[in-house]
Amino acid sequence: MSETIGFIGLGQMGAPMARNLAQAGFALRVWNRSPDKALALQQEGVVVVKRPADAATPGGIVITMVADDAALKEVAFGEDGFAEVLGANGIHVSMSTIAPATTRELATRHGKLGTAYLSAPVFGRPPVAVERKLWICLAGAGGAKARVTPLLKAMSQGIYDYGEDAEAANVVKLAGNFMIAAASEAMAEAYTLAQKAGVDRVAVAKMFGETLFACPVYQNYGKQIAAFSFEPALFRLALGLKDLNLVLGASQENQAPMPFASLLRDRLLSSVAKGRSEIDWTGIGLAVAEDAGIEPEPSR
Amino acid sequence: MSETIGFIGLGQMGAPMARNLAQAGFALRVWNRSPDKALALQQEGVVVVKRPADAATPGGIVITMVADDAALKEVAFGEDGFAEVLGANGIHVSMSTIAPATTRELATRHGKLGTAYLSAPVFGRPPVAVERKLWICLAGAGGAKARVTPLLKAMSQGIYDYGEDAEAANVVKLAGNFMIAAASEAMAEAYTLAQKAGVDRVAVAKMFGETLFACPVYQNYGKQIAAFSFEPALFRLALGLKDLNLVLGASQENQAPMPFASLLRDRLLSSVAKGRSEIDWTGIGLAVAEDAGIEPEPSR
Amino acid sequence: MSETIGFIGLGQMGAPMARNLAQAGFALRVWNRSPDKALALQQEGVVVVKRPADAATPGGIVITMVADDAALKEVAFGEDGFAEVLGANGIHVSMSTIAPATTRELATRHGKLGTAYLSAPVFGRPPVAVERKLWICLAGAGGAKARVTPLLKAMSQGIYDYGEDAEAANVVKLAGNFMIAAASEAMAEAYTLAQKAGVDRVAVAKMFGETLFACPVYQNYGKQIAAFSFEPALFRLALGLKDLNLVLGASQENQAPMPFASLLRDRLLSSVAKGRSEIDWTGIGLAVAEDAGIEPEPSR
Amino acid sequence: MSETIGFIGLGQMGAPMARNLAQAGFALRVWNRSPDKALALQQEGVVVVKRPADAATPGGIVITMVADDAALKEVAFGEDGFAEVLGANGIHVSMSTIAPATTRELATRHGKLGTAYLSAPVFGRPPVAVERKLWICLAGAGGAKARVTPLLKAMSQGIYDYGEDAEAANVVKLAGNFMIAAASEAMAEAYTLAQKAGVDRVAVAKMFGETLFACPVYQNYGKQIAAFSFEPALFRLALGLKDLNLVLGASQENQAPMPFASLLRDRLLSSVAKGRSEIDWTGIGLAVAEDAGIEPEPSR
Repeated sequence: MSETIGFIGLGQMGAPMARNLAQAGFALRVWNRSPDKALALQQEGVVVVKRPADAATPGGIVITMVADDAALKEVAFGEDGFAEVLGANGIHVSMSTIAPATTRELATRHGKLGTAYLSAPVFGRPPVAVERKLWICLAGAGGAKARVTPLLKAMSQGIYDYGEDAEAANVVKLAGNFMIAAASEAMAEAYTLAQKAGVDRVAVAKMFGETLFACPVYQNYGKQIAAFSFEPALFRLALGLKDLNLVLGASQENQAPMPFASLLRDRLLSSVAKGRSEIDWTGIGLAVAEDAGIEPEPSR
Repeated sequence: MSETIGFIGLGQMGAPMARNLAQAGFALRVWNRSPDKALALQQEGVVVVKRPADAATPGGIVITMVADDAALKEVAFGEDGFAEVLGANGIHVSMSTIAPATTRELATRHGKLGTAYLSAPVFGRPPVAVERKLWICLAGAGGAKARVTPLLKAMSQGIYDYGEDAEAANVVKLAGNFMIAAASEAMAEAYTLAQKAGVDRVAVAKMFGETLFACPVYQNYGKQIAAFSFEPALFRLALGLKDLNLVLGASQENQAPMPFASLLRDRLLSSVAKGRSEIDWTGIGLAVAEDAGIEPEPSR
Repeated sequence: MSETIGFIGLGQMGAPMARNLAQAGFALRVWNRSPDKALALQQEGVVVVKRPADAATPGGIVITMVADDAALKEVAFGEDGFAEVLGANGIHVSMSTIAPATTRELATRHGKLGTAYLSAPVFGRPPVAVERKLWICLAGAGGAKARVTPLLKAMSQGIYDYGEDAEAANVVKLAGNFMIAAASEAMAEAYTLAQKAGVDRVAVAKMFGETLFACPVYQNYGKQIAAFSFEPALFRLALGLKDLNLVLGASQENQAPMPFASLLRDRLLSSVAKGRSEIDWTGIGLAVAEDAGIEPEPSR
Repeated sequence: MSETIGFIGLGQMGAPMARNLAQAGFALRVWNRSPDKALALQQEGVVVVKRPADAATPGGIVITMVADDAALKEVAFGEDGFAEVLGANGIHVSMSTIAPATTRELATRHGKLGTAYLSAPVFGRPPVAVERKLWICLAGAGGAKARVTPLLKAMSQGIYDYGEDAEAANVVKLAGNFMIAAASEAMAEAYTLAQKAGVDRVAVAKMFGETLFACPVYQNYGKQIAAFSFEPALFRLALGLKDLNLVLGASQENQAPMPFASLLRDRLLSSVAKGRSEIDWTGIGLAVAEDAGIEPEPSR
């Protein structure tokens, strides 16, 4: 645990992930675009730096957990980016949900500097991150993976290795987010049918969460969808739209049509057009209900 | 356990359900359209009768588990139907997957004869029925429900009560079958994207079955879909199409649009048009792959 | 022009069609469910009868233009139905939009009485019917077709013959109504995109109606859709939903998936759920706009 | 007719357009990426240049008709681009089908050099271009429009002006291409339904082209779709996919969901995945037929 780890991005997910690393004994140098979010960590003894570049040490490790592809390119290769500092023998562990094409580009650019690039996107919402119960999809160069495994273990309950091609982990992450969105739409349609037929939608959701679909996604998202409980957001709907666009980008690139994903994208886009960017992405259930002539009374 | 129970319909599901009742000590009178399927049960000591009407005793209980709405009406109210014999104080426990509208019609007709009609459709495929691990959705008149509960317990691991309106249980059953089909399509799209991006689709399915979607539907159906393993059928694709048509009928009747269900119906209809009626209904994954230019090598 | 013609159904379409026959010199005996609609014709000298059966003469011709499949079966074979009276050598010319399956059933039942059954559904809205500018799809037995051709000519600008199988004409009619609905949705999406991009949607509709799509459907429906002008209805949205259900029924029966039709059905169903049954069926454009966050100010 | 006009892009569309300008008496300097395509024009007396930059004269007019957004940026602002030469008081008339966002970018960059940027995308396939029967959507600065009008008239039968904002013309062009694709899918579904019901699909297409849909798109595309006649391509399917992606990009940017467009994109993407990039884009009709279990025998 002798080396210092750079950690960039302290949002709803990044903050608890960084805290878990600190509590596991790793020395961190953290950076966040809006400095106030770094204050809490600073009070807990973590070093907060002024520029992404300051988070890196030559040949060290930098973990990134930022909002989107553009932010990721900026913190790595922008004016104050860390890539040059990190340099030869360094490792960039990218944990954000981004396009496989962005991974390809960053891996190439880092490669020219002698830096290994690992994709390590995660499954789990903020409360899961707090509890160190994330699931991690990992892909990239083998040696680098071994070196960062202790870090990943301090944030997660399990790591799935998808080989040497870093993009693979991004594809799996996108596939998973798509499957969550599809489950949400399916539940919303099913529970709305039940409601209009006079059956208690909360009871239906409870049953499926205990039987055929006794798993986290159906239990947790199902409860929200059944109760029209979409605020505060655990994952903002606007980010869900961003992700579905990444899914459809990968669908294009790989010539794999995904009609459910197309429908979900339109559902999310409509929700954004109606001013719902800031509610939870399970809030697509509102549109499903409205299309059935229901004006839901949201419970919070 | 003094009264004799009529049991009609000995298909892939009905046969193990009847056997479980017999093994629990209930005296059965069974009938099946094709008599050969009843032979095995006869050798185990169950009484096999020649007409549906012979399965009933006045004021007794008849359980039905038949192929579709038309078959159900026939065994109850057709020429040799049991409804007249069953009569006053009798109970018809209908466990097939049928339209809520059919339940409404049958409940009314039975009601005129003084018979109670209970909807008790089940979740679980044949191996689950064998193990007495079905889940049952129950709805109808309260008194009748109490009287049949010991029977239902002998076939299931749990019973969910949806109140006095018998149709409610049918709606929940249709909602569940829709959710299974939606999960199948979502998995097929996700795993096909992975495959075309060079990621092992079986490994992806395994991960999701262990993490976010650690529940029977994703584990069992997911394995089949990932491996293109659709034969022998546990639930025939043609029956899946029948069910999606029931779902969309309920969607119409209740004015609750279900775009995922519409897409699934078209997927199943196309699969039937291509000659795939007899494979498992998860076989919609073949069309998903073909639409991506993959000609899958089915493993059995 | 010696024989008397029965005409059943005096709605928005039937009334002008009957009037055109009367003005062409045909002797009519008309019937309508609500008698007040027949009054105007009576004042113009047409014989109004009290029961469908009274409209028929043995071996004569009866034309029907009624609301749906159920109404058609009732006027022909219900208690006061005309089928028995019409009998041998009679012709039933069915001009309503109905399911091919209903045609099959009626053709068989009429056939047992020695009556020929012709399908002759029409294209054109009420003002077109007034101007004798309908287009007719005709199918059925050859001899009968020759005998009714003068009647059809008095109502239309053109007749297309689809052979001896009466169902064929119904399939073409359903195909056409589907194509109209699809064009409406396509225009609504295109014009809504234009509007949100700051382009005048009325100007866009005008251009396409003068160029690539210089044809009645795009010109007439396009004007309504661009201006959000959906009242009074020329064709009620609830009837549009009925027709899309007939289309999807034919899609099922013929194992021909129609994803656009599925989407249109959901669009119409949602519009009905929102209380829009009575506006024009081009009113699906309201939902397209709302999904884009526009609250249209309908112009009438 | 004194000034020399630059013309860049001599594909299936650009070549006849340039020829029409030359025949109308305009002095042209043409450039094409693959020089052989310019040879025919050279033999007709047109000046062929070696680089895009050589096509421009300071303060003059350059017309571009190239394959896609990237090609357009390259010929204007790439290493050998014409933008710097064209400079102050020049006009770039961009006739390709591109994204509104690309127009925004190019208009800004040209503006910094004092050059006016006009969007003038066209409707019409190559034979229409030959006959000077194109329809042009025009948008951009008013003065520039007046100056190029004689040029546009020499290539078209009509010009529609969408105001000062150049992007507006691109939006209309994308809306039109979407509407064509939607009409193609609708026809393919309708004619396949007819075929499976035993009705001659060619006869059905003929009727609709003569009646409700008596307009170029339904007549010309309808004939191809009914006859499964997709080669040689008048507009390559791969370009259709490119355009639908532009449509969906505009849909995203303007928050206007377009479910038909989403479905069409998946249809085209699947066709590309199946190796059909080079057939005509109406070839989506193949997939519609295959989904209905028909293996069409293409006629050419």
